[in-house]
Amino acid sequence: MRERPPASQPAIILVEPQLAENIGTTARAMLNFGLTDLRLVNPKPDWPSDRAKATASGADRVLDGARVFRSLGEAIADLQVVYATSNRPRDLVKRVVTPRHAAGELRAHVAADVRPGILFGPERTGLVNDDLALADAVISAPVNPSFGSLNLAQAVLLIGYEWFQAADATAAEALHNGDSPVADRTHLMSFLNRLEFELDDSGFLRVPHMRPAMIRNIRAIFSRMAMTDQEVRTLHGILTELVTKRMRG
Amino acid sequence: MRERPPASQPAIILVEPQLAENIGTTARAMLNFGLTDLRLVNPKPDWPSDRAKATASGADRVLDGARVFRSLGEAIADLQVVYATSNRPRDLVKRVVTPRHAAGELRAHVAADVRPGILFGPERTGLVNDDLALADAVISAPVNPSFGSLNLAQAVLLIGYEWFQAADATAAEALHNGDSPVADRTHLMSFLNRLEFELDDSGFLRVPHMRPAMIRNIRAIFSRMAMTDQEVRTLHGILTELVTKRMRG
Repeated sequence: MRERPPASQPAIILVEPQLAENIGTTARAMLNFGLTDLRLVNPKPDWPSDRAKATASGADRVLDGARVFRSLGEAIADLQVVYATSNRPRDLVKRVVTPRHAAGELRAHVAADVRPGILFGPERTGLVNDDLALADAVISAPVNPSFGSLNLAQAVLLIGYEWFQAADATAAEALHNGDSPVADRTHLMSFLNRLEFELDDSGFLRVPHMRPAMIRNIRAIFSRMAMTDQEVRTLHGILTELVTKRMRG
Repeated sequence: MRERPPASQPAIILVEPQLAENIGTTARAMLNFGLTDLRLVNPKPDWPSDRAKATASGADRVLDGARVFRSLGEAIADLQVVYATSNRPRDLVKRVVTPRHAAGELRAHVAADVRPGILFGPERTGLVNDDLALADAVISAPVNPSFGSLNLAQAVLLIGYEWFQAADATAAEALHNGDSPVADRTHLMSFLNRLEFELDDSGFLRVPHMRPAMIRNIRAIFSRMAMTDQEVRTLHGILTELVTKRMRG
């Protein structure tokens, strides 16, 4: 057996891409999600292509490393599992998976050192049935049924996106607060106490039976902001300014 | 209060888009996932734009319905919740969510008849902090940290994709078999029995202590294919042809 580097990511195989800009934007989309193994089967543009380079927006290492093949068979020769992308897998008996499901399978393949690849067809026609027939499974993204044709690079982007998300640990929701953490509650409470004192002083809370509900509402407004220390200080400053202005006025 | 149509989907707001083709490909990406409310704040290209139309690949109803505004404030005036997209929400205290998490929130907003919108910044710079400051939350897609700049239409595509998937019921994995269902097991078994008979007849299974394992292996190969009736008939035909050829030979 020939020595091969371990599988680390799926190969992206463009079958007869027609437009250089789509190859360039594909390279960009790939690198956005850490994919670098680009293979071109009979590309229509002359190769290498300046136009592809211009549209790759800096993903040069993907374009420079792209390999050109004369047939699909040669392009997938070293691969062990092949997915084909299609939104019209008509008249074929073939397992069809969503991009999200495929991403989990691709991660499992790579973890087991199985080398996967993904086929994308020409812009106008997509993959023909002869190409689809060779694939282990078809990846089909759920789309608007009345406008389902994805741009080539957009289709690559969705697969790359799901591939990346499948191993990404970013919190689904986080408070980004730069270098300033959320204030301790005691700082928020001291601001609220001061605000309520000033509002009592000004007469804003003068109707006794309304006062408890008004205070609850005010506390609710400021408590859901998850403010930083700096932001609480800003509100203190605003309060001071407004009180001083009232006293001056 | 002014009468408004019920919220049904998020508005897509491009702030100062620079390139007509990006507006066109944005329109296509939107319609791929059923989004139609496109708003442009101070677009650089003359509007309407033939170049945008050419790159929209048929998403004319999105372009034709696009509204142009002179300020971000006017563009979001009728909205109730605003998300900003950014991969660099530096120095801002702001909730940051992934596209997938945002999609769930967007669906919840629309279900509650709350009108959401999503801001996308200019191609080179992205949204400035003055724009981000006005948003309820920031959507940031996990990307390759060393090559994280998404094309404008690609960023719109990811949001539209997640929006669509959040309400899509497509099976993650399915066997697409056109009009031909998977064969009943009895048809597969009758093929396997016939194959084994022929292999016994030819002497292929002649070593008695090997025979059970060989039969298990042969059954395993053909049993994982989930073949249709037609495919089983094709295998019967192949078997007949090969047996006849052997008898002729």
